[in-house]
Amino acid sequence: MASTAIGELNFPARVLLGPGPSLVHPRVLRALGMPVIGHLDPSFLTILNETQALLREVFHTNNRFTLALSGTGSAGMEAVLVNLIEPGDAVVVGVNGLFGTRLATIVERCGGKALPVEAPWGQPIDLQVLQEVISRSGPVKAVAVVHAETSTGVRQDLEPIGRLCREAGALFVVDAVTSLAGMPLDVDAWLIDACYSGTQKCLSCPPGLSPVTVSERALAAIRRRHTACRSWYLDFSLIADYWEDQKRLYHHTAPVSMIYALRESLRLVLEEGLPARFARHELHSRALLAGLAVLGITPLPAPDVRLPMLNCVLVPREIDEGGVRAELLDRFGIEIGGGLGTLKGLVWRIGLMGESATAGNVLALLTALGAILSRRRWARHPEQAAAAAAAVYAEAGRENGITP
Amino acid sequence: MASTAIGELNFPARVLLGPGPSLVHPRVLRALGMPVIGHLDPSFLTILNETQALLREVFHTNNRFTLALSGTGSAGMEAVLVNLIEPGDAVVVGVNGLFGTRLATIVERCGGKALPVEAPWGQPIDLQVLQEVISRSGPVKAVAVVHAETSTGVRQDLEPIGRLCREAGALFVVDAVTSLAGMPLDVDAWLIDACYSGTQKCLSCPPGLSPVTVSERALAAIRRRHTACRSWYLDFSLIADYWEDQKRLYHHTAPVSMIYALRESLRLVLEEGLPARFARHELHSRALLAGLAVLGITPLPAPDVRLPMLNCVLVPREIDEGGVRAELLDRFGIEIGGGLGTLKGLVWRIGLMGESATAGNVLALLTALGAILSRRRWARHPEQAAAAAAAVYAEAGRENGITP
Repeated sequence: MASTAIGELNFPARVLLGPGPSLVHPRVLRALGMPVIGHLDPSFLTILNETQALLREVFHTNNRFTLALSGTGSAGMEAVLVNLIEPGDAVVVGVNGLFGTRLATIVERCGGKALPVEAPWGQPIDLQVLQEVISRSGPVKAVAVVHAETSTGVRQDLEPIGRLCREAGALFVVDAVTSLAGMPLDVDAWLIDACYSGTQKCLSCPPGLSPVTVSERALAAIRRRHTACRSWYLDFSLIADYWEDQKRLYHHTAPVSMIYALRESLRLVLEEGLPARFARHELHSRALLAGLAVLGITPLPAPDVRLPMLNCVLVPREIDEGGVRAELLDRFGIEIGGGLGTLKGLVWRIGLMGESATAGNVLALLTALGAILSRRRWARHPEQAAAAAAAVYAEAGRENGITP
Repeated sequence: MASTAIGELNFPARVLLGPGPSLVHPRVLRALGMPVIGHLDPSFLTILNETQALLREVFHTNNRFTLALSGTGSAGMEAVLVNLIEPGDAVVVGVNGLFGTRLATIVERCGGKALPVEAPWGQPIDLQVLQEVISRSGPVKAVAVVHAETSTGVRQDLEPIGRLCREAGALFVVDAVTSLAGMPLDVDAWLIDACYSGTQKCLSCPPGLSPVTVSERALAAIRRRHTACRSWYLDFSLIADYWEDQKRLYHHTAPVSMIYALRESLRLVLEEGLPARFARHELHSRALLAGLAVLGITPLPAPDVRLPMLNCVLVPREIDEGGVRAELLDRFGIEIGGGLGTLKGLVWRIGLMGESATAGNVLALLTALGAILSRRRWARHPEQAAAAAAAVYAEAGRENGITP
C-alpha cells in the first residue's frame, strides 16, 4: 500500500451494540481531544488524583491502590495475576467461558498452577463445586472468577465466593471488565482483593485503559513475594510509586489523553448515579429480550443469571448468522457480536452498555433485525418485535408515574 | 476527595519541551476525537492496514510484523524482550543511561541473563568493548541497545552493531523510542531484528501506543521457542493473529481512538517527509544550543554523539535547577525535563520533538530562561541568547536561498 494513497480518516457512522467498545458520549470525545500536557505536570497529577477518587466510588472501595493501568482490560487481567502469583502457586479458576479460560492460561504463563472449576458455557460456576475444589487442593493462593462472562452473557454471584476465600485464606480475584458501572459491584463489601475492568464497556470510554483496584491484604501478599514480579511494565509496586501522591516517581509515560477521557466518563457515570445506571441497563435488556422473543430468539443463560449489558441469544439454526450481522452493519450501521470459542456461529452477543443502552438503539435494532429476518422468511410479524419492546418501556413509564 | 467536587477538565496551556510527551498537532487531536467504531469492523481493519503501511515507511522496513502495541514505549521494550528471550538466554545490553539499565532489568525479569556493556552516562557504548563482550560470552541470543538515550541525550551508532550481531548469530534489538521520525533510522539496511518506539516523542502523538517492527529472522527465533511466551498480553504470535489481514482473530480490544491518532500523526510525518523532518530537528537543536551557550549552559554529550531532539545540558552549579523548571512552567507555561538517575539535579533535558521543534518555541524558551537566570544573577546579557538562536535561523535561511 502506498502511503500517499492514505487519506483523511473516513468511516461510516455506527451504532455499537456488540460486546464492546460501546458508544462514547460527546463529552468524553471532547476530553480526549484536549491538548496533551506532561505526565509529571502538577496539573496532570491533580487529574490523576481525581481519576482515582472517581474510580474508588465506581468500584465501591476505599482501596488506596485504585488506578488505571496503561493497557486494555486484558492487560488488567495479566497485571493482577503476574503480581499476585509466584511460580508454583495454586490458583482456583472458574472456567465457564472464554474469559475464564484466559484466566487459567495466564495463571500458567505466570508459572502458577491453574485448578479449573468448570461449568458449561452459558451457566455460572457452581458454588458447591468451587468450595470442594478449594478445600481439597491444599494451600490456594487465589481464587479467580469472571463477574460478567462476555462470551456467554452469564452473571456470577460474587458475595458467597468472597466469604469462601477468606475462610480458605485465599485472595479473591474478580474480572469486572464487562460488569463495572453496568450492574452492582461492591469490592469492599464482597471481600474482593483484586478487581480489574476495561474502559470500553459500561464506562463508555474508548478502549485502552484498565481500571484496577487492589486490597491492602493483596498488597501485603505482593510485598511477601520471594521473587520479583515477572513483568516490569505491569509491576504494581513500581506503578504505585508514580500514582501515589507523595512519590510521583517516573515509571512509564502515562497515557495522558486516555486518562482525560476516563475521568470524563467516570464523571458521567456518577452524574447519572450508579443505581439509576444499573436500572437503565436492566430496563433496556428487558425490552430487547421482549422484542427478540417475538422474533423467536431466546437467551442462552437462564433468567436468574443473565447479564443486562450483554445479551447472549441463540441464533435460529435456519439463519446464516454471519450474513445477518454483516447486513445489520452494512445496511443499518448497527454492530452486534458473534459467538466466540464453542459458541461460534451459534449465538449473537448484543451489548447494551453505557451510552449504547438506549430505547432508540433497542427499537432500531429490533426493527432492522425484523426486516432482515423476514426477508429470510424467518420472522412472520417482524413489526411486532419493536412493539413488544415499546410495551416494556410504556409499562416502566407507568411504574415511574409517567403517562406515555 | 468527594467526586461531586470534580468538575470539567481544566488546565493551563503548556509548551512541551521536555523529554516527552511532545506537542500534538490539531489534526491528530481531531482524529483522536472521532467516534469509536468496533475493533473488528471492516472499516477499522482498513485503518489498521493503513497504519501498518505508514509505520513500515517511517521505520524503513518491509517487515510484515510492523504494528502498534497496546501500551506505551516501555510496553514495547518488555514485549520485544519477553517474546525473544527464554529463561537462561544470554543478552548483551548496552548500559549508558536509564533506558539501557531498564533493558537489563527486563531481560532478567524474563529469566534471561543480562550481560551489561557499560559506558559513563553521557557517552555512547564503545563498539570495541561491545565486540569483545559478545565474542567472549559464548552463545548470545540478542544484543540490545538504545538508539537515542533519553536520559543523557546520547546517540548510539547502530549500523556497525547490526553487522556484529549477524556475525555472532545474535538478534539485534533497538530501542527507538525517542529517535523514530526525529533522526535517521533504517531498520532493514541496519540489520535490526526488533525495534520498538513510543508515540509521544518525535511522532507527536499522545502517549499510549508502542510502534514495533520485528524481522522474519526474529519471528523464526520466536517460533523455535521451547517455552510459551511468559506474557499473554504481549505475545507476538497472538497479536499477529489479530493484525494479519487473513486472520483477524480477537485477542484483546484494540485501542481504537489511539490508533486513529497514530495514523494521523504518521500521515503528518510523511507529508513533511523524513529527510526534511530530520533536518528540522537538527536545525532547532543547533539554534537552541547556540542560545544556551550565551547563557553559559553547555551540552553533556560530545558534539558527534548529541541527539537533536533531546538536548541534555549541564545546569550551572550555582543554579537551583528545580526552581528554574518550576518557574518556567508557572510563569511561562513551558515544560522542560530534569535529570534522571545519576544525573538527577545536574542536567536539564530539553526536548525539541516533532511538533515541539519550532523556532517560536526555541526563542520563547531562551527568552524565558534568560529572564529567570538573570534574576538569579547568573546570566549577564540574557537578551543575547535568543539573538544567537535567531542568527542560526538567519544563516540557515541564507543557505536555503531565503533572504531574512
